[in-house]
Amino acid sequence: MNIAMTVSYDGTSYYGFQTQPYGNTVQDILEAGIRSLTGEEELRITGSGRTDAGVHAHGQVFNFHTASRIPVERWALALNSRLPDDIVVRDAARVPDDFHARRSAKRKTYRYTIDCGKFPDVFARHYRFHHPTPLDRAAMREALRHFVGEHDFTSFASKHSTQPSHVRTIYEAELVEEGSVIHLFITGNGFLYNMVRIIAGTVILVGEGKMRPDAIPDILAAKDRNMAGPTAMAHGLTLWRVQYEEYAPEL
Amino acid sequence: MNIAMTVSYDGTSYYGFQTQPYGNTVQDILEAGIRSLTGEEELRITGSGRTDAGVHAHGQVFNFHTASRIPVERWALALNSRLPDDIVVRDAARVPDDFHARRSAKRKTYRYTIDCGKFPDVFARHYRFHHPTPLDRAAMREALRHFVGEHDFTSFASKHSTQPSHVRTIYEAELVEEGSVIHLFITGNGFLYNMVRIIAGTVILVGEGKMRPDAIPDILAAKDRNMAGPTAMAHGLTLWRVQYEEYAPEL
Repeated sequence: MNIAMTVSYDGTSYYGFQTQPYGNTVQDILEAGIRSLTGEEELRITGSGRTDAGVHAHGQVFNFHTASRIPVERWALALNSRLPDDIVVRDAARVPDDFHARRSAKRKTYRYTIDCGKFPDVFARHYRFHHPTPLDRAAMREALRHFVGEHDFTSFASKHSTQPSHVRTIYEAELVEEGSVIHLFITGNGFLYNMVRIIAGTVILVGEGKMRPDAIPDILAAKDRNMAGPTAMAHGLTLWRVQYEEYAPEL
Repeated sequence: MNIAMTVSYDGTSYYGFQTQPYGNTVQDILEAGIRSLTGEEELRITGSGRTDAGVHAHGQVFNFHTASRIPVERWALALNSRLPDDIVVRDAARVPDDFHARRSAKRKTYRYTIDCGKFPDVFARHYRFHHPTPLDRAAMREALRHFVGEHDFTSFASKHSTQPSHVRTIYEAELVEEGSVIHLFITGNGFLYNMVRIIAGTVILVGEGKMRPDAIPDILAAKDRNMAGPTAMAHGLTLWRVQYEEYAPEL
C-alpha cells in the first residue's frame, strides 16, 4: 500500500528534512517512528523535497510503501504517539501506487515571515525573521510581481545548485500583512536550492530602499547569483503547502 | 530612579519568574542583565507576582531602583542585548519612587489557551493545552460568569496557599474563540496560588460535560479545594497584562 502523509514540524532543532550522514533530520525521525509501527526495517519515505536546517513545515508531504495492515485512518494518531512534540502528522491517506511525493507535486507554496515590530514576539521568535525597522511594503509587492511567470532563476539559486535546468515557473508571489508582521507567500512548480530565501533576501533589500523593484528583471536576466540580495535567515521560512492531483489532505 | 518595565517571556525553560534556591528563573536572568549594565551588584527587581514553572508572560511588569544614568528610552534595547531570546523587554519607563510592581497593581489579566484541534499546532505547542475533543463553549461561558464578582476562592487555590485571605474580586471572565482554539481571559484584582489553572481545569470539566455550569456557586461556597476540578497544565497559561494607575506601557 502506498500511503501519503502531511506533516508539520518545527525545524529549529533539526538538520533539515532530508537524511544526512550525521543524522538528526526530520526524515530520520519519521522513518524510525514508521518502522517501529510496521516492523519494516528497510522502509524509507520520500519527501516532496528537502528543507534546510532551521526551516519549518506547515504542510510537508511524504509517501512510503508498506505491507502493514494498520488502517489508514489510524496512522496519524499511531505515528504521532511515537514522534517528538516538534513533529506532528496531520493527515494520512492511501494514494495510487505510482504516487511519488516529489515527482507528483504540481505546486509548492513557501511562506517567508518577517516581524517588523520594534521588539520580536517572543512566542514566534523561531518562526519569523526580526527586522526592527519598517519596510516599504508597496515596493516589496512590486518586486514580487516581477518573479511571477517562467524564468531562469540562476541568479536566485545557491551556487551549489546541481540542477540541470534553472528554469522554474512562479504562479503567485503575494505579500500578506498581519499588523507588524509581513508574510511572503510564493507558489511555483518547483524551487531551486535556497531560491525562496534569496528571493526573500532580495525583496527585503527592496523594502529597505536599497534596491529598486524594477531591478528584478535585470537580475533575472543576468543569471548571476552575485546580482541578487543575500540569502535570508532560515528560521523565517516555512514550507507551507504541496499540491497534487492524487492527494488532498483533510486538514 | 525607579524604573518599571514590561517583559514577555517564554516560560518553557524556566523554573518560573521568581528567584528560587536552584536558580534558572526569569528574575535571575533579568537581574543579571540589569546588574551587568549598571554595575550595581545588590540590585533586585520586584515583579507584579510570581509565575510558575512553564507559565509564560505576554506583559509581566517589574520595577527596580537604580542610580544608573542610562536614559530610560535606551533601557529596553540595551537590556535585550544581554538577555536570551526567550525573554524580551518591550517597554521601560520612569515611575514615581513609591511605585511597587506588586503592591501598586490594580488589575491583572491571565489568559489560558486550549487547542481543540484534532492534532496540536506544532508552532504553538508550548503555549496551548491540547484537548483533541470538542468542548461545549456555551457551557464554559456560563461557568465563567459565576466567577465574576467578589468571592472567597479557597476552593480554587492550591492547598499550599499561605495567603491570610482568599477573598478576591474577578472583574471579567471571557471565552474568546479563534477557530479550534479557545482562550479564557480572566481579569481580577489579584490571584491566589494556582487559582487561574484551577479555574481553567474546572471550566474544561464543564466543557467536557462532566460538570454543570451552575455547580460553580456551590463549589465557591464549599471553600474546599477537593470540590473544584484539576489544576490545568502550566504551559497553557500566560500572564497577559498588569494594569496600574502610575504606569501604562507603550506597546
